Amino acid sequence: MADGRPVEGVYLSGALDLEALFGRYFAAHSDRVRLRRPEEIERPEEVCFALTWLPTADAFRPYPNLKLAASIAAGVDSIVHCPSLPADAIVTRVRDENQGDLMAGFAAWQVVWHHRNMRFHINHQMRGEWARRNVDDYIPPRDCTVGLLGYGFMGKAIARVVTAMGFPVVAAVRTAPPEQANGVTFEAGEDAILKTAARSRILINVLPLTHATRGILNALLFSAMPKGAALVQLGRGEHLVDEDLNRALDSGQLAGASLDVFSREPLPPDHPWWRDPRILVTPHQASDCSPVLVAAQVCRAALDVVAGRRPETAVHRANGY
Amino acid sequence: MADGRPVEGVYLSGALDLEALFGRYFAAHSDRVRLRRPEEIERPEEVCFALTWLPTADAFRPYPNLKLAASIAAGVDSIVHCPSLPADAIVTRVRDENQGDLMAGFAAWQVVWHHRNMRFHINHQMRGEWARRNVDDYIPPRDCTVGLLGYGFMGKAIARVVTAMGFPVVAAVRTAPPEQANGVTFEAGEDAILKTAARSRILINVLPLTHATRGILNALLFSAMPKGAALVQLGRGEHLVDEDLNRALDSGQLAGASLDVFSREPLPPDHPWWRDPRILVTPHQASDCSPVLVAAQVCRAALDVVAGRRPETAVHRANGY
Repeated sequence: MADGRPVEGVYLSGALDLEALFGRYFAAHSDRVRLRRPEEIERPEEVCFALTWLPTADAFRPYPNLKLAASIAAGVDSIVHCPSLPADAIVTRVRDENQGDLMAGFAAWQVVWHHRNMRFHINHQMRGEWARRNVDDYIPPRDCTVGLLGYGFMGKAIARVVTAMGFPVVAAVRTAPPEQANGVTFEAGEDAILKTAARSRILINVLPLTHATRGILNALLFSAMPKGAALVQLGRGEHLVDEDLNRALDSGQLAGASLDVFSREPLPPDHPWWRDPRILVTPHQASDCSPVLVAAQVCRAALDVVAGRRPETAVHRANGY
Repeated sequence: MADGRPVEGVYLSGALDLEALFGRYFAAHSDRVRLRRPEEIERPEEVCFALTWLPTADAFRPYPNLKLAASIAAGVDSIVHCPSLPADAIVTRVRDENQGDLMAGFAAWQVVWHHRNMRFHINHQMRGEWARRNVDDYIPPRDCTVGLLGYGFMGKAIARVVTAMGFPVVAAVRTAPPEQANGVTFEAGEDAILKTAARSRILINVLPLTHATRGILNALLFSAMPKGAALVQLGRGEHLVDEDLNRALDSGQLAGASLDVFSREPLPPDHPWWRDPRILVTPHQASDCSPVLVAAQVCRAALDVVAGRRPETAVHRANGY
């Protein structure tokens, strides 16, 4: 700040030790910003910003002058819905090109996993068995439409890779872009998500979690999909109605699923999904932000709000993304 | 032919029952072409073409007027090196856009397999263990160069997908293209392959098998690669010096390998690679031609050569691709 004192920040998470994860990266990045744990703050009225993830319901209450709630990741759902978040605080996300690449590679890997049934090969290697699949066992990529729920930064990165592999992509959007991207078509309007599902042999979810999208991966959506389709769930655990997925797999309506996010994380050790050969479980690993980049973007956002500027990484709070 | 009799062809393979694999597709495609087994041919001098794969050394000898030897796949190495192949016969390959897509998706999947260590997740799912990898455990895609040995139809398809995932690609070529493709750089000239290897954290081989490329994946090449790199072998088994790979893995020079082709196929059940956790074995499955398309392209090539036209799918025999 003008008087040389650092901008004061506080770690607010009910789930993660943010100081352990990010402290050294912030210290290395800038001495104009200081981040401390709530119990270390003597004058809460001087706290300008929070670095936060899954804040508790009253986490923000002690800080009357908080101007910024900075997520450590791309998602902000736990922050914008926190009841104690000040009404006029700016919420920022992290925007990491590298994270887009990571997400796109991970999603493309899951598409091929289902399209080529790669588990078949892994199982046969474990048995030492040479077992070729017939070329007629899989649909040519150009006839195997991949659907995208979520067509923001992440969704567009995924679409680039999946179309490059020869798959047609259909994306659910509010308003169809005037120009059709290469290999991507759109479903827009009220029924965009169901119409997208109806065309998708492999459906990838990277939606943000909002009131409108909670539970969107449900029995109605699965029944709209072509029989034997696969789900790749990379959004938030709360998008999925777990029981509806189980029923869709048991009936054969869905052939398989890749799940990277869960309503309860870590997924408990006794959960049946761990041992379900139709499901590939990964531990919320599709795409992590670089902590170096988190520190850089959050420091910049903190200095921006103190100077009265709106940070580039600010989200639209009402939309939730 | 002009007189209404079909163009006569013969199945020639020392390894595969080509009639069982392709007979019904040729029958469905055209009645202007007739394909039979050698023992069914009464007048060998009337045979104009062969559908062939791994022909025996003297396979072509009985057919003095053979004008075309048509491979069932993208590779022609076993055909151009067959001693009985008539000196003036045209050799064709199959060119299948779908096969390019399949190869590109398979190769991209292998890149992510190594880059993200996906086996780690599969192993942990089997144990019901939630184990996240640290984001610092992997190199950002933009800092993880992927090398390509082979930059023809297949190599270019792979480059499109791998660059779309954010990885820089370096390709070994005879002569660098005047225009640099998006995200692809080139190594040209005598040492192109070694120079490419030296830059590649993940090296993908899709070279054709020729005298010049036999045994190209050897100790010298592995020692040129960055320590801890990975090999993705999708070319021909004879490209690889098996013992050199084992030594490179044992010394830690290479961290892992994906092998889809082998000098002896099927890979024998007692081969140690089946049980080596550093190696992913797949049964020559990266990319198959559609048999419908094989029939269409080979029939067309047969009618072309009979009419004195050079088929679009003809290869340069001396180059071997």
